[in-house]
Amino acid sequence: MRPVSTAARPPAPADHHAPPGALEIPKPLVEVEAPRRRSPAEEARTLVAGATLGTLASLSEGGDPWGSLVTYGTLDDGTPVLCLSLMAEHGRNLAADSRASLVVASADIGPDPMNSGRVTLAGHAEKPEGQELEAAREAHLRAVPTARGYIDYGDFSILVLRVERVRWVGGYGRMDSADAAAYAGAEPDPVAPGSSFAVSHLNEDHADTLLVMAQALAGFTDATAARCTAADRYGLDLTVETPRGRSWTRVGFAEPADSPDGLRPATIELARRARATTPA
Amino acid sequence: MRPVSTAARPPAPADHHAPPGALEIPKPLVEVEAPRRRSPAEEARTLVAGATLGTLASLSEGGDPWGSLVTYGTLDDGTPVLCLSLMAEHGRNLAADSRASLVVASADIGPDPMNSGRVTLAGHAEKPEGQELEAAREAHLRAVPTARGYIDYGDFSILVLRVERVRWVGGYGRMDSADAAAYAGAEPDPVAPGSSFAVSHLNEDHADTLLVMAQALAGFTDATAARCTAADRYGLDLTVETPRGRSWTRVGFAEPADSPDGLRPATIELARRARATTPA
Repeated sequence: MRPVSTAARPPAPADHHAPPGALEIPKPLVEVEAPRRRSPAEEARTLVAGATLGTLASLSEGGDPWGSLVTYGTLDDGTPVLCLSLMAEHGRNLAADSRASLVVASADIGPDPMNSGRVTLAGHAEKPEGQELEAAREAHLRAVPTARGYIDYGDFSILVLRVERVRWVGGYGRMDSADAAAYAGAEPDPVAPGSSFAVSHLNEDHADTLLVMAQALAGFTDATAARCTAADRYGLDLTVETPRGRSWTRVGFAEPADSPDGLRPATIELARRARATTPA
Repeated sequence: MRPVSTAARPPAPADHHAPPGALEIPKPLVEVEAPRRRSPAEEARTLVAGATLGTLASLSEGGDPWGSLVTYGTLDDGTPVLCLSLMAEHGRNLAADSRASLVVASADIGPDPMNSGRVTLAGHAEKPEGQELEAAREAHLRAVPTARGYIDYGDFSILVLRVERVRWVGGYGRMDSADAAAYAGAEPDPVAPGSSFAVSHLNEDHADTLLVMAQALAGFTDATAARCTAADRYGLDLTVETPRGRSWTRVGFAEPADSPDGLRPATIELARRARATTPA
């Protein structure tokens, strides 16, 4: 083992120091109010609710960082529930030092993974007891039914990750942190499970409507085409083609969608509003 | 921040201490030689070559384990090449403490993720110099073309992960370690890119042949059905139905497949041999 580096921790640079010629993004021609977005805590809860597979970072002997694939369920407040074996390095790691973080990536990783959503939940792993152990066991089995094959083996333990710090990255230029209380109090986006289908449907069958939305509601009055890249309970993300180049923007629903099937009526209302706003 | 746990590191239990009634797997009725398998180092190299997205574990302030999504390319010896920003926590982490591990999971995660392949590469991240920097930059851009959009930004650095320890998990009961020399010297399986298609094709169009293979070459003379679950340069993994229950086994090629299109001739030879061996 080599000696551990003892370099000073560098400060974060203030910006990218982009080389000359780096992309300038066209701005809207008419100023519009920025539509509501999911909060970082909501983004985090949505990503965690949308998967059952993540990567755990724990500490191996000597404090070395150790990554490993894990399955997880979640308690109602978003606390991840792991089921780990002491025969595996990560299980022994957490038994000796409870510090851990869990990375969950979006299921919709596109052609540019760095422009996709992911979240890191950092905290301590603990063995739950009593009623919480029961709830944790149920939560894990609900998310990972195949765990029934080993959850009662003597070398496996159920562990909850007490989330203390949350770092969400949504893609280029979209990232933020959240604290434990915000994470626990946020709700996973109820429309997330159907959003991929909605995005495809909007692009395939309603490209004209998306264009009107971009022109009338997002201030891109010179837009020549628009595509939907994401749909959430608060609105739609769009890419917009203009004579000035490609840009991206967002249009917001009148009311947040509050149920899994709320995306359709919210989008219909948005389309009506866009058409009513467009100059004849 | 809570105080760090100082529990003693537990030893690994010798086995699962399975509860009564845990599954007994039927054995072959005729003893056969175990066919060759990929080595742990070959498994690791194959997984790493099959992806460009992984999860990095690094050390945040205070030595806390920090997981984050990263893209990577690889040098010829399997050394991962990262491109990280100092604006991101993982970039600052590695600048202060070079210890890191990288987790890469199989692209073919099935309905039971814990029965799928993944690997952890542990070592130190370093800034390459001179010719190695050029090679590393090219390797990263070849694997991650979208990195062209930020690789020359002032806050990004190219880092190579000097692999010191490798832990591969192939699924239940299939796991092993490899050292740095074995990892660097191993070859990614050349047939891996086409193996998913081959497995589907064998199951859809050649189930009868798979059954004969299981009966004649794997010692499951009472098999009533067989399915292929994986194909690699050395042979096929099969699940086998018998009156005694479901089991799994493996049949080996006469010669390892040495090119991407070597799976088909190797499988045809295997089928001929199985039919020639079957009692009339």
